[in-house]
Amino acid sequence: MTTLTPEQLLERLNWRYAVKKFDPDKKIPADVWAALEQSLVLAPSSFGLQPWKFLVVDDAALREQLRAASWNQSQVVDADRYVVITALRTTTEDDVDRYIEHQCAAHGTEVSALKGYRDVIAGFLVKSWAAKDLFGWNARQAYIALGQLMNGAAAMGVDTCPMEGVDMARYDELLGLKGTRYATLCACAVGYRSAEDKYAGAPKVRYPLDQVIEHR
Amino acid sequence: MTTLTPEQLLERLNWRYAVKKFDPDKKIPADVWAALEQSLVLAPSSFGLQPWKFLVVDDAALREQLRAASWNQSQVVDADRYVVITALRTTTEDDVDRYIEHQCAAHGTEVSALKGYRDVIAGFLVKSWAAKDLFGWNARQAYIALGQLMNGAAAMGVDTCPMEGVDMARYDELLGLKGTRYATLCACAVGYRSAEDKYAGAPKVRYPLDQVIEHR
Repeated sequence: MTTLTPEQLLERLNWRYAVKKFDPDKKIPADVWAALEQSLVLAPSSFGLQPWKFLVVDDAALREQLRAASWNQSQVVDADRYVVITALRTTTEDDVDRYIEHQCAAHGTEVSALKGYRDVIAGFLVKSWAAKDLFGWNARQAYIALGQLMNGAAAMGVDTCPMEGVDMARYDELLGLKGTRYATLCACAVGYRSAEDKYAGAPKVRYPLDQVIEHR
Repeated sequence: MTTLTPEQLLERLNWRYAVKKFDPDKKIPADVWAALEQSLVLAPSSFGLQPWKFLVVDDAALREQLRAASWNQSQVVDADRYVVITALRTTTEDDVDRYIEHQCAAHGTEVSALKGYRDVIAGFLVKSWAAKDLFGWNARQAYIALGQLMNGAAAMGVDTCPMEGVDMARYDELLGLKGTRYATLCACAVGYRSAEDKYAGAPKVRYPLDQVIEHR
């Protein structure tokens, strides 16, 4: 197995930045893109529930409409790929049952054998801290997937720009999500930085380590 | 620069799983751990505000107390490192000013030059969708950092287990966060899987790609 050294990991993380200007002519190779889609499939989530859907917007006209709902930012149309990240508006016992059935199929076990585990998750939906805001809980999980997309891209030398400044209600309309169980959270442009993006060379703005990490 | 191939990335993501049983005797080399702490420092966040603090729990007795507040899960004490992820309970204009001053220092610009940008962020805190729940907004960002920690570890061959099933209020007490601006969100155990962890070989349970990714 191939792993990164600490130096290589930090080189990758320092190379990554939120691209302001993508090169509209540079395309992501098919195998690289397939791996990024798979990285979204493989993202971890609480209980493994995967409370999300990822919409890859291929249609150029739709991208223009989304751009208008994104403070007119050029990344929406210039990046080779544009992924809208959505989460379940709520999670129900049916979602738990679907997941448990899927797990049993994957592991070759009987659904009855996971009854206790199923009830723990179902109880979590109504009794835990997350019960007050299941959409918020799902959103947190989806941000792990957003992170995994950005990290996987950086590991392969592909650029990204996370986009939180979008009109989510308008996105829902344009993407046909109104009245569905999923709602837009944010998006991520994926492609390659333009040689003209002056932000590529800007020093990273991060608080010093001793201001964000404490030992106990 | 060294990048991963698509096959190598997927090998890493498939290798990762939520470790149930860590090897308590296996320690993370100092340079690898330093890179993981740095990966937290480098995590991206909305506007770059970094609304978080990461607590690395070194004290064995404190780990035992946290374990009792974590459904007694052994990962809390067996993993070489245990990181508690916290977020700002709210974000204020002072936080924005601190960030802007830090950015100006990093980029060598005058604070006055970023007045417009500063006001955009300050306005976002009171007028945007996030204004209704700034803690929830900060939590989403912190989950990006959680993802970056898990991804960086996997890239270097280090195991993790994200821990959402923790008694956050009790964690806040034990970690001295009560009455501070930061609140516990979740935790992440970091170390190496035990050879006895039967979950290491279990097939991943993920919905098929066409159920989580759609094209538009």
